Amino acid sequence: MSKKFVTFLPTGAKIEVESGTDLLTAAGKADIEIKAPCGGDGTCGKCVVQIKIGAGKAKRDSHLAAKLAEQGLNLACQILVQDEDMVVEIPKSSAMSKHQVLVDCNQSGEGITEDPLYGYDLNPLCRQIRLTLPAANLQDNRDDLNRLTMALRKETKCTDFSISLSIIRDLGEILRADNFKVTVLLSEIGDKAEVMAVESGHSHQPLYGMAVDIGTTTVVAYLLDLEKGRVVDTAGTHNRQARFGDDVISRIIYAVDEPDGLKTIHQSIIDTINALITDLLVKQSIKETDIRVIMTAGNTAMAHLFLGINPKFIRLEPYIPTANFYPAVRAQQLGLRVNDDALVFSYPSVASYVGGDIVSGTLFTDMGNAEAPIALLIDIGTNGEMVLGAGDWLVTCSCSAGPAFEGSGITFGMRAMDGAIERLEIDAETYEISYTTINNGKAIGICGSGLIDCLAKLRQTGIIDRAGKLQTSLPTERLRVGEAGPEFVLVWQQDTDLDCDIIISEADIKNLLRAKGAVFAGIRTLLNVVGFELDSIEHIYVAGGFGNYLNIPDAIAIGLLPDIPIEKYKYVGNTSAKGACMALLSQQAWAEANNLAGKITYIELSVGNLFMDEFVSSLFIPHTDLTLFPNVGL
Amino acid sequence: MSKKFVTFLPTGAKIEVESGTDLLTAAGKADIEIKAPCGGDGTCGKCVVQIKIGAGKAKRDSHLAAKLAEQGLNLACQILVQDEDMVVEIPKSSAMSKHQVLVDCNQSGEGITEDPLYGYDLNPLCRQIRLTLPAANLQDNRDDLNRLTMALRKETKCTDFSISLSIIRDLGEILRADNFKVTVLLSEIGDKAEVMAVESGHSHQPLYGMAVDIGTTTVVAYLLDLEKGRVVDTAGTHNRQARFGDDVISRIIYAVDEPDGLKTIHQSIIDTINALITDLLVKQSIKETDIRVIMTAGNTAMAHLFLGINPKFIRLEPYIPTANFYPAVRAQQLGLRVNDDALVFSYPSVASYVGGDIVSGTLFTDMGNAEAPIALLIDIGTNGEMVLGAGDWLVTCSCSAGPAFEGSGITFGMRAMDGAIERLEIDAETYEISYTTINNGKAIGICGSGLIDCLAKLRQTGIIDRAGKLQTSLPTERLRVGEAGPEFVLVWQQDTDLDCDIIISEADIKNLLRAKGAVFAGIRTLLNVVGFELDSIEHIYVAGGFGNYLNIPDAIAIGLLPDIPIEKYKYVGNTSAKGACMALLSQQAWAEANNLAGKITYIELSVGNLFMDEFVSSLFIPHTDLTLFPNVGL
Repeated sequence: MSKKFVTFLPTGAKIEVESGTDLLTAAGKADIEIKAPCGGDGTCGKCVVQIKIGAGKAKRDSHLAAKLAEQGLNLACQILVQDEDMVVEIPKSSAMSKHQVLVDCNQSGEGITEDPLYGYDLNPLCRQIRLTLPAANLQDNRDDLNRLTMALRKETKCTDFSISLSIIRDLGEILRADNFKVTVLLSEIGDKAEVMAVESGHSHQPLYGMAVDIGTTTVVAYLLDLEKGRVVDTAGTHNRQARFGDDVISRIIYAVDEPDGLKTIHQSIIDTINALITDLLVKQSIKETDIRVIMTAGNTAMAHLFLGINPKFIRLEPYIPTANFYPAVRAQQLGLRVNDDALVFSYPSVASYVGGDIVSGTLFTDMGNAEAPIALLIDIGTNGEMVLGAGDWLVTCSCSAGPAFEGSGITFGMRAMDGAIERLEIDAETYEISYTTINNGKAIGICGSGLIDCLAKLRQTGIIDRAGKLQTSLPTERLRVGEAGPEFVLVWQQDTDLDCDIIISEADIKNLLRAKGAVFAGIRTLLNVVGFELDSIEHIYVAGGFGNYLNIPDAIAIGLLPDIPIEKYKYVGNTSAKGACMALLSQQAWAEANNLAGKITYIELSVGNLFMDEFVSSLFIPHTDLTLFPNVGL
Repeated sequence: MSKKFVTFLPTGAKIEVESGTDLLTAAGKADIEIKAPCGGDGTCGKCVVQIKIGAGKAKRDSHLAAKLAEQGLNLACQILVQDEDMVVEIPKSSAMSKHQVLVDCNQSGEGITEDPLYGYDLNPLCRQIRLTLPAANLQDNRDDLNRLTMALRKETKCTDFSISLSIIRDLGEILRADNFKVTVLLSEIGDKAEVMAVESGHSHQPLYGMAVDIGTTTVVAYLLDLEKGRVVDTAGTHNRQARFGDDVISRIIYAVDEPDGLKTIHQSIIDTINALITDLLVKQSIKETDIRVIMTAGNTAMAHLFLGINPKFIRLEPYIPTANFYPAVRAQQLGLRVNDDALVFSYPSVASYVGGDIVSGTLFTDMGNAEAPIALLIDIGTNGEMVLGAGDWLVTCSCSAGPAFEGSGITFGMRAMDGAIERLEIDAETYEISYTTINNGKAIGICGSGLIDCLAKLRQTGIIDRAGKLQTSLPTERLRVGEAGPEFVLVWQQDTDLDCDIIISEADIKNLLRAKGAVFAGIRTLLNVVGFELDSIEHIYVAGGFGNYLNIPDAIAIGLLPDIPIEKYKYVGNTSAKGACMALLSQQAWAEANNLAGKITYIELSVGNLFMDEFVSSLFIPHTDLTLFPNVGL
């Protein structure tokens, strides 16, 4: 096979690829992220590009691609590089702009200001112990290893020490280099401890750890000083796996169906994390080798892909993950750019669609505490995972809300990036729109918080009915019938950075109703399982990046969240990352995380009719049963 | 540096080496073993060669080398290959002939006939378990790993399972390939188990293990069928480390002082074992990958070198080994040519000079059994290790006998190889000698059993006095004064395969007295420590290759072994290898071996005067105190 160059405009990035490579993959290799929620299937129509030089070859007959071709446009995923170099322009609407990564809600210019222990005592998963061993002599002629482990038993609560042959090999010299004074790097879990390094003398080595929240969309890393128990710095970026699909399902399909798919997608998250690590280390002038432990938290699919575990059966009924508890591994085995011997821990999951990120959030919100009031933790993302409980009982489900609130399946839906409409008002008289966009750029689409606003306002102004149907008879030119049926114009073309109007269609609205209905039905199902009502809930913790921008009254108005007093709601931020920090800094927190993962009862919503009945009732605004929303007018 | 060829005669073996390489090393690379008890220091004078073509360069001024040069001979260790190819003849007296390796005393033409379990139940360190797991469904949606470990808990006594990420990665497919029927390869130690492999279906994989006795001189391997609990085949060879010195001290010096010494000498024992493995596997048509577990037993220095642990401090006062208990490692880490994931166990040691081979022997002789009578286990090799005890109390020491009985330090001493005098009689009237050699070849030296015979007969015929002094006034031309003082001719040159007479000198006799004296003093010291007398001993177990050829009455006659009834002596063979087999085939035996290693009390003979006093009294034949040897006439 020959190799050809592809140049991408407007940046001019140039990459050499094998002929036969599709343009979406080529862009990925050039580190240019193009929107591709369907993962390159030719179905979502988001990866539109314009070929300037060179022809390429159309992959197959796609109705969508054919239609676009009439306008001189192509889908990047459908065009294969052939026997000539190409120049390809990526319109702004197709480019994935630098994602706004919310590291945490409590971030100031100086970084994270909160204490990352959240009440736990500092007792990190890895620590340095300085020992002075009794010197060997003819009367005390215990072997070196025994001399070391006996001293460690005194200093720790551990009884079971493991130490690798590679450390033992030179232990004799190390013990004697400074007259039996040594510094031991130890990782303790319960009564077991692993000796990670032994050095001569009472040296003081810098000792850092990384807590990583592996989100499907964004990845956030916290660099922690393990001895001081504080956050040194944080960084976030988009998950490079995005080019294999927006949601976990497309990623699993890629991993399972493509040749070397698992290897490629596994490497992609490793690369993402390595880039974050390098950024942080360079910025803080810290050596790779000083990072001795990593704690990750992510959903179950992300954990599988991160560890290179085949995720195939997560997706197939009965939805079984290969593992919910993952062994600690060495950084070297995964190719993470920290100390080769660093221990890498992965937060345990509960089930295929309730992962370590949710366990981490449950730890952070202290819901497992025996004295905790009844609370609901909810993370509205692709799946809408939630945990309901108090102390000893905790139930969880994942309501398959779908990625509508992340912009997927919505004509002008997009993630929270520059140019996304995030707030929106509709004049009840004129039906005119006022809005704000992220970073005040010209509008190019509408993100989750904007969509919820939009839905609430469309309903409040009577533009849609309770079933979400557009009232096309209303006197405004914004209401019209487009190619895909009735639609409402949100922004006229001249005010956008696009070549068209930004609209929301009736089909979009139906998708949003399904998403919000699934979340509410999930909440109702969990309550039903344990025999409680909505008003039993004392706290609702809203977690995740999306939650930060969420307008709670609007979310209640559309029936996404329960109609309980607003003061019972609390936005808790990136609890996945925060719980990962806690577990890294506190052995007790890590023990509790593992305890929680075993204790939380998973409710499979596809068993029985309970959820489906609730779902159908939730497809109205706010709900079929208005008594559930006493404070929502209309 | 340039490369040159060295051809060794009489075999014609040719090897290319860097110029600057000494001929001893070159021969080693060509797989030709030359005698070199001093490890190539130029001091023992055993590695004599004759250079036929090429000059080489003398390494340094060695008195010995200079003297040999007058006869046109060189020491291989002192000649460096220079800028020309060389042809070098190795005289028979310098070549290490194929060592007689005693695999075991109970070996027939069909191999080992004994049951290798010696009373323990078959319960090997690694076994296959066939499981049918409950199939996953929406009601039973435990993760795959949990499903597997819960089933294993039912089948075993283990509660703590470890399983590597590499196995987990594909567990989902493996479980489902044959509808949740799997075959698990498991290694159980106490309540801990390691999942070594998981395969689909109820397959029956061949399952073999290797028990390896790593002796300083010889290495013996047993190939075991772990499912049937029987010995399939055995093989023995010399330890290739011999070219770095005969005894553990020279090997430690080589490992510590030479550049890459530890790496080289470690690789050398790995190569030795790999050669045995290959021989056995080819002979039995068994695949490398079917060997899943290895158990080794050897002295402490051998264990360190086998695992690549720096042995430096074994040799330096206060004689501390780096470890007495060694972690199990994967075969791959050591480069052993079996299944990469095979677990490699090493027998625990007691102290620097009481190793796993002695622990193994203690297990085999059942001396730790609560009902065992007082017994003495003795292994007369370089060090003369012994264990005295009964049930709960066991004491051990190593008496630094030195390698005299292995032929080292004795003018014509040699190991038990072809041409070695092994039995010897002296006519009391004529002082004429009759003898037998191993394999009836022409005599080239005298091995340990021959030396003991010789000493006993020299004393019985009055040729030496009780202090070992040659009675030069006796009327025989065999008594004469040689270069090194008085000597006695054992074989005239015409009856040898050498260019000289075979003699024993007074200095040789003194060396033998020191060796036998050290052993007896060790026995007396142990008895003294626990307050028992010689006649309290119910059994004396004589272990090791040397023991097999030992003439017990002669050994008593010279005062090497206690004067107790001959029926209390039992030759127990290669207990190091036998104990290794037991531990491999029985978890209980392995647990007991570890228990013994912790329980046996080590007595350091260099502390206090007890041993030295006993030693001085033991330098006579049979002893200063004749009441200790009531049955030895004279």
